[in-house]
Amino acid sequence: MPVRVRNIRKKKEKKMATKQDYLKETIQHIDIKQHNVVPFVDSMEKMAFSARDLNRAAKIFDNMLKDKDCTIFLTLAGSIFSAGLKKVVFDLINNNMVDAITSTGALIVDQDFFEALGYKHYIGTPFVDNNELRELAIDRIYDTYIDEDELRVCDETIGKIADSLEKRPYSSREFIYEMGRYLDNNGGPKVEDSVVYAAYKKNIPIFVPAFSDCSAGFGFVMHQTKFPGEHVSIDSAKDFLELTKIKIASKQSGIFMIGGGVPKNFTQDIVVAADLLEGSAEMHKYAIQITVADERDGALSGSTLKEACTWGKVQTSSEQMVYSEATIAMPLIAGYAYHKGSWKNRQGKEFQKLFSSEKIDA
Amino acid sequence: MPVRVRNIRKKKEKKMATKQDYLKETIQHIDIKQHNVVPFVDSMEKMAFSARDLNRAAKIFDNMLKDKDCTIFLTLAGSIFSAGLKKVVFDLINNNMVDAITSTGALIVDQDFFEALGYKHYIGTPFVDNNELRELAIDRIYDTYIDEDELRVCDETIGKIADSLEKRPYSSREFIYEMGRYLDNNGGPKVEDSVVYAAYKKNIPIFVPAFSDCSAGFGFVMHQTKFPGEHVSIDSAKDFLELTKIKIASKQSGIFMIGGGVPKNFTQDIVVAADLLEGSAEMHKYAIQITVADERDGALSGSTLKEACTWGKVQTSSEQMVYSEATIAMPLIAGYAYHKGSWKNRQGKEFQKLFSSEKIDA
Amino acid sequence: MPVRVRNIRKKKEKKMATKQDYLKETIQHIDIKQHNVVPFVDSMEKMAFSARDLNRAAKIFDNMLKDKDCTIFLTLAGSIFSAGLKKVVFDLINNNMVDAITSTGALIVDQDFFEALGYKHYIGTPFVDNNELRELAIDRIYDTYIDEDELRVCDETIGKIADSLEKRPYSSREFIYEMGRYLDNNGGPKVEDSVVYAAYKKNIPIFVPAFSDCSAGFGFVMHQTKFPGEHVSIDSAKDFLELTKIKIASKQSGIFMIGGGVPKNFTQDIVVAADLLEGSAEMHKYAIQITVADERDGALSGSTLKEACTWGKVQTSSEQMVYSEATIAMPLIAGYAYHKGSWKNRQGKEFQKLFSSEKIDA
Amino acid sequence: MPVRVRNIRKKKEKKMATKQDYLKETIQHIDIKQHNVVPFVDSMEKMAFSARDLNRAAKIFDNMLKDKDCTIFLTLAGSIFSAGLKKVVFDLINNNMVDAITSTGALIVDQDFFEALGYKHYIGTPFVDNNELRELAIDRIYDTYIDEDELRVCDETIGKIADSLEKRPYSSREFIYEMGRYLDNNGGPKVEDSVVYAAYKKNIPIFVPAFSDCSAGFGFVMHQTKFPGEHVSIDSAKDFLELTKIKIASKQSGIFMIGGGVPKNFTQDIVVAADLLEGSAEMHKYAIQITVADERDGALSGSTLKEACTWGKVQTSSEQMVYSEATIAMPLIAGYAYHKGSWKNRQGKEFQKLFSSEKIDA
Repeated sequence: MPVRVRNIRKKKEKKMATKQDYLKETIQHIDIKQHNVVPFVDSMEKMAFSARDLNRAAKIFDNMLKDKDCTIFLTLAGSIFSAGLKKVVFDLINNNMVDAITSTGALIVDQDFFEALGYKHYIGTPFVDNNELRELAIDRIYDTYIDEDELRVCDETIGKIADSLEKRPYSSREFIYEMGRYLDNNGGPKVEDSVVYAAYKKNIPIFVPAFSDCSAGFGFVMHQTKFPGEHVSIDSAKDFLELTKIKIASKQSGIFMIGGGVPKNFTQDIVVAADLLEGSAEMHKYAIQITVADERDGALSGSTLKEACTWGKVQTSSEQMVYSEATIAMPLIAGYAYHKGSWKNRQGKEFQKLFSSEKIDA
Repeated sequence: MPVRVRNIRKKKEKKMATKQDYLKETIQHIDIKQHNVVPFVDSMEKMAFSARDLNRAAKIFDNMLKDKDCTIFLTLAGSIFSAGLKKVVFDLINNNMVDAITSTGALIVDQDFFEALGYKHYIGTPFVDNNELRELAIDRIYDTYIDEDELRVCDETIGKIADSLEKRPYSSREFIYEMGRYLDNNGGPKVEDSVVYAAYKKNIPIFVPAFSDCSAGFGFVMHQTKFPGEHVSIDSAKDFLELTKIKIASKQSGIFMIGGGVPKNFTQDIVVAADLLEGSAEMHKYAIQITVADERDGALSGSTLKEACTWGKVQTSSEQMVYSEATIAMPLIAGYAYHKGSWKNRQGKEFQKLFSSEKIDA
Repeated sequence: MPVRVRNIRKKKEKKMATKQDYLKETIQHIDIKQHNVVPFVDSMEKMAFSARDLNRAAKIFDNMLKDKDCTIFLTLAGSIFSAGLKKVVFDLINNNMVDAITSTGALIVDQDFFEALGYKHYIGTPFVDNNELRELAIDRIYDTYIDEDELRVCDETIGKIADSLEKRPYSSREFIYEMGRYLDNNGGPKVEDSVVYAAYKKNIPIFVPAFSDCSAGFGFVMHQTKFPGEHVSIDSAKDFLELTKIKIASKQSGIFMIGGGVPKNFTQDIVVAADLLEGSAEMHKYAIQITVADERDGALSGSTLKEACTWGKVQTSSEQMVYSEATIAMPLIAGYAYHKGSWKNRQGKEFQKLFSSEKIDA
Repeated sequence: MPVRVRNIRKKKEKKMATKQDYLKETIQHIDIKQHNVVPFVDSMEKMAFSARDLNRAAKIFDNMLKDKDCTIFLTLAGSIFSAGLKKVVFDLINNNMVDAITSTGALIVDQDFFEALGYKHYIGTPFVDNNELRELAIDRIYDTYIDEDELRVCDETIGKIADSLEKRPYSSREFIYEMGRYLDNNGGPKVEDSVVYAAYKKNIPIFVPAFSDCSAGFGFVMHQTKFPGEHVSIDSAKDFLELTKIKIASKQSGIFMIGGGVPKNFTQDIVVAADLLEGSAEMHKYAIQITVADERDGALSGSTLKEACTWGKVQTSSEQMVYSEATIAMPLIAGYAYHKGSWKNRQGKEFQKLFSSEKIDA
């Protein structure tokens, strides 16, 4: 591995910095339960710009929670778990504030499962010698550091789980359920706020439509190389069908989107898929998105929810985009809804059970 | 509410708008072969800001083409084909200026294959009544319109192709190859600049790591519902393994990224995957990206190529990000390299053949 | 006035909307004193991205307040008063948390003085018929409405104040002081949170380097047309000299910047001016900025504080940019510092008195 | 802290860097006359997103030039002259493609006049040790360097010009005219593409509403300190009145805006000022803006031209915003209009003469 080899050579020359010099302080996840932001967010109602938008989004989320018929989809993109927002999602799961999750792979595998295995994210800075980080096998996400060696253990664990399963196509949901089971069978997660584990326990399905685009991809590359004939595969079409079935099983639906990307599009598209399968489907009745993406490049992440209406995906009456980086806006919106308490009258929908007659617990 | 009243009155007065009122003028793809932008781009060399960055990116792309050992990966995100950039990619393919493509599904299926079936994108505007568009089944992408009914034919065609294939897991590359074959077997594409068809003919593999996140997803939902037992599935892990094999088969590599998203990350990750499989891998030697995404939200799309260096994915000596919306910068960069002509001494690498002993042409 | 005339004609045709249909709900200013955000902001310390940056900026502002030697400059840009942030600045003034203010004219005249005259800003939406607004003489700032007729009264009041003064060049500071005196002499402001009036009472100078670029400009156009010979003029060079004198009179200094623009640059430049006059000057020791402006276009608003260091304006040890729209970040940063209470040990510096021997109270 | 240690060692090893190590390659201004971009820009007409917007903006600019009644206002913000766009503005002036200019001070004084005195801007990089730059008295604008010592000569020259003038309030236009005269009286500018000098010769007025917010501010601080009693002052209200008079003297008007800021607002506001003075005024008939500023923070720079319509400033029929950094879009738009040649039938309006009966040539 020349990358590593090169490191070692340089280290000899000049008394290199060590990993310990960089990996000192760990990221701590914010706990929305500790902060009653309701009065603060309420005070934004009659302001303007992003504050007023944030207030409206928070109220729409609360309305989703009040609406008994509403299935709540949460979509996640951006490196928000390494940034300290993991416990927010954990609390949404544990308090029946979300019914299904669509995410990027990095969040679920490289960040949540990674921490469940006992590893940490570290406080860093973007103003740094990137080549030195590479030589030390420290990966950087803007202002956060990760120990690449620990990430490789995560990759390998995915490979081991794949090795242990019946060889057939799985939806990402099924596989992520198996990751939860793996944690359960191995003494539980090493942290108390594991999203994968909490979702496993609460029967909340997690979908990662581009599942190989993360640490899981490395695990699967190893698995499929080891088992070139029959092996575990990840069927992203099955993901789409399963998520559509959840939509079909729901009277109403709402989406809470953090960032855009594939999770946003995928979860909006199920309205159209439900329409194809059933000959009719309700648009998402509620939709909120936190994003800094610009609308003007025509890309999906910044495309407005009003645009989504033309596609028949989202109703325009209860939609709100919030122009903010997620680490600031998400604790305010999720915290607002948490402390309003409408979730207390809400039952978990346990959509995982929708699929249990199929393969999972067979 | 007078605004509303007026609407109603208008509808009565002038009859509901029809599709034909909106779908009038079609998008025309820019032809870089017609515009020698070399002197113009050269004049940006000693300017500052994005102009200088664009000049440097164009020269790096030209350097990739001069470097015989360099495999060129093109990654595509954003709605750039509906925006008139499809022929640019077609010309890159036809002139041996790219060896493998990673893309979002929308570009390959909803936009390129869609046009190959004879459908068009239409010039529109974001300042429009979105609900009226929805009622007319017109989908909007910022300032561009699509006939949803035509898109559904595209969905169904994907379903039909799936129905016709051997029931097993496919990489997206395999399936997209079958889409090319379908066009071939059905009189060829209805347009002269089909990316899917040109890649099929030139043996250039196309990967879509989130393949169900587009029109293809709808086709597969129909296919898998029709064939609930054995059916075609899309194995995104196989995609990752195959793309890694292309990296392993290459002495050097470079990436030309339009936008970010899954295609960007996926194609950078193969360096690490190759390292895992082979115990050694060269970082991408060249890397350029056109994007308007901001770095400060920590998300992948705007993450700098210098950050990618810490992950061991990209060398810092020949990387350049260009802060521009793609419809302006891509014709300048691709056009510059086209008119410099370094591609004339370059052979197509035909990486499709790397996999032909496996399943494709069996 | 054809603009108005046109309105009237259309009104007859079709029962137009009226002003009252649009101008219903008024903007309410957030009161940071009501929200102890300290625990919430503290919880951001070990997160990443904007949350961590915001935490650090809040602590730097608190450090400015703890540092007895530090003069605090506040710079204001963007339509933040019409957006509900006026009382935040009012509270900073009243609690000795700021010593001098540099602002755009719109904030001080069109928004603060305007409200002091008894007028309001109204909650609106960007999704509106702009031509109808124009016909109704309603001005729009993104999602906020203003009654243009009321704004014209504001213009005229400025003209009247100018008419009443000794005919000579004034710094904007002098003139804004006269605006405070005008309010005092006319029964006080019609609102309790007037920034102009509070600064007048607390002897805090306010500078508007581009003073004619706002409602004041209209007032002066009328004044100078009425008095073509000798008249009041606004000497922006005098502004710069006066602000520099405040810097020279300060042992240390810090800047809290909301947005960029002229106020940001102007207030940074006084370090260089002090250096010219005194042969030596301390850089601003503390500097924080809230902005969404991008760095990559090379413009001043998004230029980093690290770049400002090369100009000798800002030290790099205590600077922090926060990537956020101001209505969200400013209440958190200002509220944090307010509830930390370091300002309680702080005296107002009353820099207005630095100039009183000159012209003001003569 | 090994990073720091290495620095120190490096300094010892290789001597402190010198200015000459950084100030090597000079910025070269692009020459639109050399590049016929008409076919390229025409090919963007039926694309989407920024390309189509750019095409439309270019055609609107050409329409301004065809419209004999139209006075063309150019507004300039951002560091575009140091970035290589100075000659574009020079060519617009010399070919009667612009009638009045409103600008930031930095562009006119620190960048154009500075180069007219014989100094240069240098190619740099944002990835640099900012403290080292400061120690070497090198100022950085993103990726461009300036010799601070040379800039101080520019400051002093302004001071000298002020010293030499009759002591009274001047509009910035008057003073900038005197800067042109200074160049004329001192052997002409040291470069062939001086904007200040070309405008002086062509009788095109240049306004800088925040004139002390730049190198000129330093000159005036020195001048007014030297002459504490009677001195030259800069009356920004006079600027506004004069620019309004140009509007009043014009049948129609159009604005070509590069960036936003004070120049954008100031030049839009003259419609309202003209309305105040004359009881009637035409809105700007044409308006185009190149900017990357976002609309969602409510600030002026990114505010849409449709919003400007509500203020009665801009007609909505011929307005277009282009979302692009200026170094790419401005040469395409200005170059398109140059090579279309409509300016050949256009006379310079020489608005400088409108004021010559007043003070200038007295």
